[in-house]
Amino acid sequence: MSRESRLIRWIWWILVVTALFFLGFIIGWFAKPSHANSEKHKDVNKYLKEFLDEMQTDRIREHLRKLTQLPHLAGTEQNLKYAEQIQKEWLEFGLDSVEMVPYDILLSYPNKSQPNYISVVDHHGSEVFNTSLAEPIPPGYEDVSNIVPPYSAFSAKGQPEGDLVYVNYGRTEDFFQLEREMGINVTGRIVIVRYGKIFRGNKVKNAILAGAKGIIMFSDPADYWAAGVQPYPDGWNLPGRGAQRGNVLNLNGAGDPLTPGYPAKEYTYRLSLEEGVGLPSIPVHPIGFHDAVHLLKNMGGPIPPNNWKGALNVSYRIGPGFIEDLKSHKVRMNIHTNNQVTRVYNVIGKIRGALEPDRYVILGGHRDAWVFGGIDPMSGAAVVHETVRSAGRLLGKGWRPRRTIIFASWDAEEFGLLGSTEWAEDNARLLQERAVAYINADSAIEGMYTLRVDCTPSLHTLVYDLTKQIVSPEEGEEGVSLYESWHKRDKWTNDRDAPRISKLGSGSDFEAYFIRLGIAAGRARYTKNKKTERYSSYPVYHTVYETFEIVEKFYDPSFRRLRAVAQVRGGLIYLLADSELLPLDANEYAHSLRSYAQIIAGVAQRNPDQMELYKVSFDSLFSAVQNFTIAAKGFHERLQTLNREDPLQVRIMNDQLMYLERAFIDPLGLPGRPFYRHVIFAPSRHNKYAGESFPGIYDALFDIENSADPETSWKEVKRQISIAAFTVHAAAVTLTPPA
Amino acid sequence: MSRESRLIRWIWWILVVTALFFLGFIIGWFAKPSHANSEKHKDVNKYLKEFLDEMQTDRIREHLRKLTQLPHLAGTEQNLKYAEQIQKEWLEFGLDSVEMVPYDILLSYPNKSQPNYISVVDHHGSEVFNTSLAEPIPPGYEDVSNIVPPYSAFSAKGQPEGDLVYVNYGRTEDFFQLEREMGINVTGRIVIVRYGKIFRGNKVKNAILAGAKGIIMFSDPADYWAAGVQPYPDGWNLPGRGAQRGNVLNLNGAGDPLTPGYPAKEYTYRLSLEEGVGLPSIPVHPIGFHDAVHLLKNMGGPIPPNNWKGALNVSYRIGPGFIEDLKSHKVRMNIHTNNQVTRVYNVIGKIRGALEPDRYVILGGHRDAWVFGGIDPMSGAAVVHETVRSAGRLLGKGWRPRRTIIFASWDAEEFGLLGSTEWAEDNARLLQERAVAYINADSAIEGMYTLRVDCTPSLHTLVYDLTKQIVSPEEGEEGVSLYESWHKRDKWTNDRDAPRISKLGSGSDFEAYFIRLGIAAGRARYTKNKKTERYSSYPVYHTVYETFEIVEKFYDPSFRRLRAVAQVRGGLIYLLADSELLPLDANEYAHSLRSYAQIIAGVAQRNPDQMELYKVSFDSLFSAVQNFTIAAKGFHERLQTLNREDPLQVRIMNDQLMYLERAFIDPLGLPGRPFYRHVIFAPSRHNKYAGESFPGIYDALFDIENSADPETSWKEVKRQISIAAFTVHAAAVTLTPPA
Repeated sequence: MSRESRLIRWIWWILVVTALFFLGFIIGWFAKPSHANSEKHKDVNKYLKEFLDEMQTDRIREHLRKLTQLPHLAGTEQNLKYAEQIQKEWLEFGLDSVEMVPYDILLSYPNKSQPNYISVVDHHGSEVFNTSLAEPIPPGYEDVSNIVPPYSAFSAKGQPEGDLVYVNYGRTEDFFQLEREMGINVTGRIVIVRYGKIFRGNKVKNAILAGAKGIIMFSDPADYWAAGVQPYPDGWNLPGRGAQRGNVLNLNGAGDPLTPGYPAKEYTYRLSLEEGVGLPSIPVHPIGFHDAVHLLKNMGGPIPPNNWKGALNVSYRIGPGFIEDLKSHKVRMNIHTNNQVTRVYNVIGKIRGALEPDRYVILGGHRDAWVFGGIDPMSGAAVVHETVRSAGRLLGKGWRPRRTIIFASWDAEEFGLLGSTEWAEDNARLLQERAVAYINADSAIEGMYTLRVDCTPSLHTLVYDLTKQIVSPEEGEEGVSLYESWHKRDKWTNDRDAPRISKLGSGSDFEAYFIRLGIAAGRARYTKNKKTERYSSYPVYHTVYETFEIVEKFYDPSFRRLRAVAQVRGGLIYLLADSELLPLDANEYAHSLRSYAQIIAGVAQRNPDQMELYKVSFDSLFSAVQNFTIAAKGFHERLQTLNREDPLQVRIMNDQLMYLERAFIDPLGLPGRPFYRHVIFAPSRHNKYAGESFPGIYDALFDIENSADPETSWKEVKRQISIAAFTVHAAAVTLTPPA
Repeated sequence: MSRESRLIRWIWWILVVTALFFLGFIIGWFAKPSHANSEKHKDVNKYLKEFLDEMQTDRIREHLRKLTQLPHLAGTEQNLKYAEQIQKEWLEFGLDSVEMVPYDILLSYPNKSQPNYISVVDHHGSEVFNTSLAEPIPPGYEDVSNIVPPYSAFSAKGQPEGDLVYVNYGRTEDFFQLEREMGINVTGRIVIVRYGKIFRGNKVKNAILAGAKGIIMFSDPADYWAAGVQPYPDGWNLPGRGAQRGNVLNLNGAGDPLTPGYPAKEYTYRLSLEEGVGLPSIPVHPIGFHDAVHLLKNMGGPIPPNNWKGALNVSYRIGPGFIEDLKSHKVRMNIHTNNQVTRVYNVIGKIRGALEPDRYVILGGHRDAWVFGGIDPMSGAAVVHETVRSAGRLLGKGWRPRRTIIFASWDAEEFGLLGSTEWAEDNARLLQERAVAYINADSAIEGMYTLRVDCTPSLHTLVYDLTKQIVSPEEGEEGVSLYESWHKRDKWTNDRDAPRISKLGSGSDFEAYFIRLGIAAGRARYTKNKKTERYSSYPVYHTVYETFEIVEKFYDPSFRRLRAVAQVRGGLIYLLADSELLPLDANEYAHSLRSYAQIIAGVAQRNPDQMELYKVSFDSLFSAVQNFTIAAKGFHERLQTLNREDPLQVRIMNDQLMYLERAFIDPLGLPGRPFYRHVIFAPSRHNKYAGESFPGIYDALFDIENSADPETSWKEVKRQISIAAFTVHAAAVTLTPPA
């Protein structure tokens, strides 16, 4: 070989070697993932489908059957047994951990040896009529013990006696009408009020403020009877002897009445019963309409306005007291209910997040029931159970969500959201810093018509996206999505072509999470047709007739509706926990804020002269909403160009989304209500404005409509507008670039 | 070539090619950095040295000279000019952004046409003695206008006239002694009180509670005179005609008195002056000791106890009123000070964090001064200015900290920490979610002895580590570290061999950040020898004699002490902003909590019988401290094995450290003080326990020592122990693994 050719060969050799080396280098470079974390969850959608498909109607039926065999009131042995069973099964399903978390809280039970009842007594004091001591037992449950009779939890004890006054629904406006228009004073009298329209605890508060010494609540067929439906067990209507149990507290989000602000642990300081939060000072008792007829039929006094008349065959006269012939007859309440510090148990199950274990997505619902809880809450608990099972199956296939999922079976919801609130108090610091969202899981069904979703505006888009991936449970709607089915039945009025989503109100376990802590929250259930079915809630609500069978025979024989609810609740949790970017939409919040601001400005404008006189303006609020709108738009635009390869940048944007809801919390709370801290969403003090936003402003406006001192009230309106404007401004800033 | 050898050759060939390829692959794999972010800040220490070395004594002298030329009281034009100058220079130094942030807050100024003074009047009402209207101007400043005369900001207006009562320092115990032991009632009288021991606002509150109708405060040489030192300008002692200005509010952290809880923006609702927080209801005025002699010398009444006697050549008789011959002489206060909503300006400068722009490290100090502010606050502001300059130089060299640094020049600190509190209120949501630490930068020097550091326990270790890298500013200590110099002069008593670090108290701009929001905080300055120098603060505090020259001639002629303070403050900010793992030490917090718990349990144990009677136990608190100790230890052990290559894991651990301080915040605040929310560190309501931890428990214990109803007070002690125990438990949980 010539030198030359050797040289060429060597050069060639070196070139090949170098080329090969570089080829290897380049392949090595690109073969290596950019981040240790970048096993991108591209499978999010694949696993979502598996997760949803895994949920089975038969399983839900089975869970519901198992968990409604026996009464399981909060604080009873049976409710602990169900807690243990749930703990055991959640572990079997595959959760990473499941703990029992006890608290010692104030509960209230009837005295077993002295039953509660109401009498009509004659002038000798003899009882000429007594209300029934219990509801007739539904078929199949004749041998069951420990069915608590209808009672009002936390009622004061006592045996007040006096003339009855009928006060319609016991709303503020009913008492105003009674006092101002009819000139009837209830001081020292016993009021009888029909259930419905507002929370029963508010009826009690209003009665106490009006001076009543006792309050009787009854379910009127006008409010708890569906036309053309048989009473249970032949249909799902309320039997005449069915009566609605329920607590009559005014907690305003305080949780356990003896430990407001702090978890009720063994070492926790407890207020005395006299100092306890929200405990009524008068006896309270609920009755069915069969008994109510006996109290109402002989009442004297004026004929009521038409909208005070229910559907019973009586005149609904106002009183006070009975007709002339029976003037000497009085009504006596016999109430012996005891308050008692009792241990209750939350069950807390966890799936540890793979990448962000310190971000929490919570699915929580209560387990305690007044009796069997066929609808409330076990239709919801069964759905959660199936969600846990399906998540466990996914874990078994190697899936693990990006963020931590927490499943909670709350105790003592029926006694004032106590289990969920104590846990929120116990973990307030962690939740404030780490909670992404809370999805509530109370009763999964209250009607047979369509889906109902209440949630914070930032979840709107996610709810729509998700329900498009779920199939309608309705017969004859094969191949139709839940979204379409829902959209067809319940359209959002005017402003958008989409199914209606409502604001979150209050009265279930999301309160502490949403209204106190400012965690994005939502709930979903199957509901009735609000346009045609005018009764409150559902007829057998909180009666012994809430059985497994009422669901199986009437509400959801195929269990497809419950499965659809399971898929909505579970799907929300799944997508919140596993999406790389949090599926929260700040633009939707902006849109909602603008509409709320317009509505309340309109309400205030009913007094244009006074607004001018006291120099009241909503300009600052509108300007804040405008800021927020711009900030939200900018945020979502930046999200488009986010470098998703950089885990810190992703986390930073997600943190901004997570903390958006938190920004609406005012640490000082609403006036006089330190645990209601959400400036946009909290119940107004007045039922008139219960469903509205900006409760602080509404409360002040209500005072103007009803108070003697407009100057003070308009000052408070101005103060509240200023707080609202500042809060919305501050929320806008949380969406701007962080530095 | 044989087939065989060809084959061998081919095999050989393939082997070489494959080997080369793999070599390339492997090199490629390892050559590629693991993370986009992993330009590890290995240069942290190199840049720290450059950052510290860049700070120059001459520059600090220059900054101080420039910023003390003219009086710059909050709300005046000159203070705005300095703000603009600082804004301009910070931008020149290289900060990413510098904004002016205005608020409209309540300030208080003397009436220019009706000067404030105090008279002795005879029985005709003629003024036989008047206090001086101003301090003699120091040399070099004769032509300066706008020197505000000594006054008590926010004093009520009025001209009360009456007999004087001398009440020593005006502490709670002084008033108790006066009323209970001496039997003297101050109702309807004017009290005269010496400055020192407690915050002047508390003296005023105590006087009001005791019923006084006016209060005069004077600087006694016993409290404001250093032995063997000439008065200014010949030394740094207080001239006889010097008087201490200052606000006399009782804000308890509320910020602007008219907008508690919310930033004082243009649209913000304002309380009326009558509703304002913490405004005193009586006239208040400060005087120097030359004037005080004239009021005290003729006083009658009992001879005081020895510890009530100051160092003036008078008897310090208590009164009420003057000696027999002058009984008809009265004291009249003439106070015309006006409250006025005024615009003030914070200057906010930022260096955007490279990797975590949403994590904030704040260096803040005030700019407003009573007059020139030679010491308070400009010795501190000059130090911050130099820190900013040095940071700017580093930026110029390509450095950028991991986290965002915020520099703040606060306005209106002297009027109740107003500028810093309004900004904290304005940005509460961001700060709560993103602030890592707040370092305060008030006066950098108050003595010539050694370093003084007050900080949260989690910063102890960082302070020690840092001061070992800074050189002592003292002459003759070349080559000695600041740590050693400090250690030699001020040893931590008994329990550890290290320089003393004290708890953060209150009274400077860290309050809203530390006590309201729960952000880890600290401060550093040069101080006097507390063992030998017994005077309060420093003699010329809040007088016209706080000039540039007093620092240049007496306190720090070489400006090395100020440089050392700059290096401590700057070094803390630097390391907090740029360390990959936050340099916060939870074990130190555990150690401190244990010692605080032991101390307070000891105090309570002074009443062993009552503790038994009322079943009071500290067990729950000790058990919580034990939990915390274990959690802290576990946390730091996990930190050892942390995979630092994983940016999410690093962030998660850092978040736990950042939120540790936040965990001590009780959202409900201390009883009646919604803005003092730190359960461990907040001022007690009672000066007796001012320096202690667990203020809620101390306040209740104080009531036991001084109240008629031990049952109520011990119940409150129990409640407070329960809150403290829960808080420490909850803080422990924030350190455990997040899921």
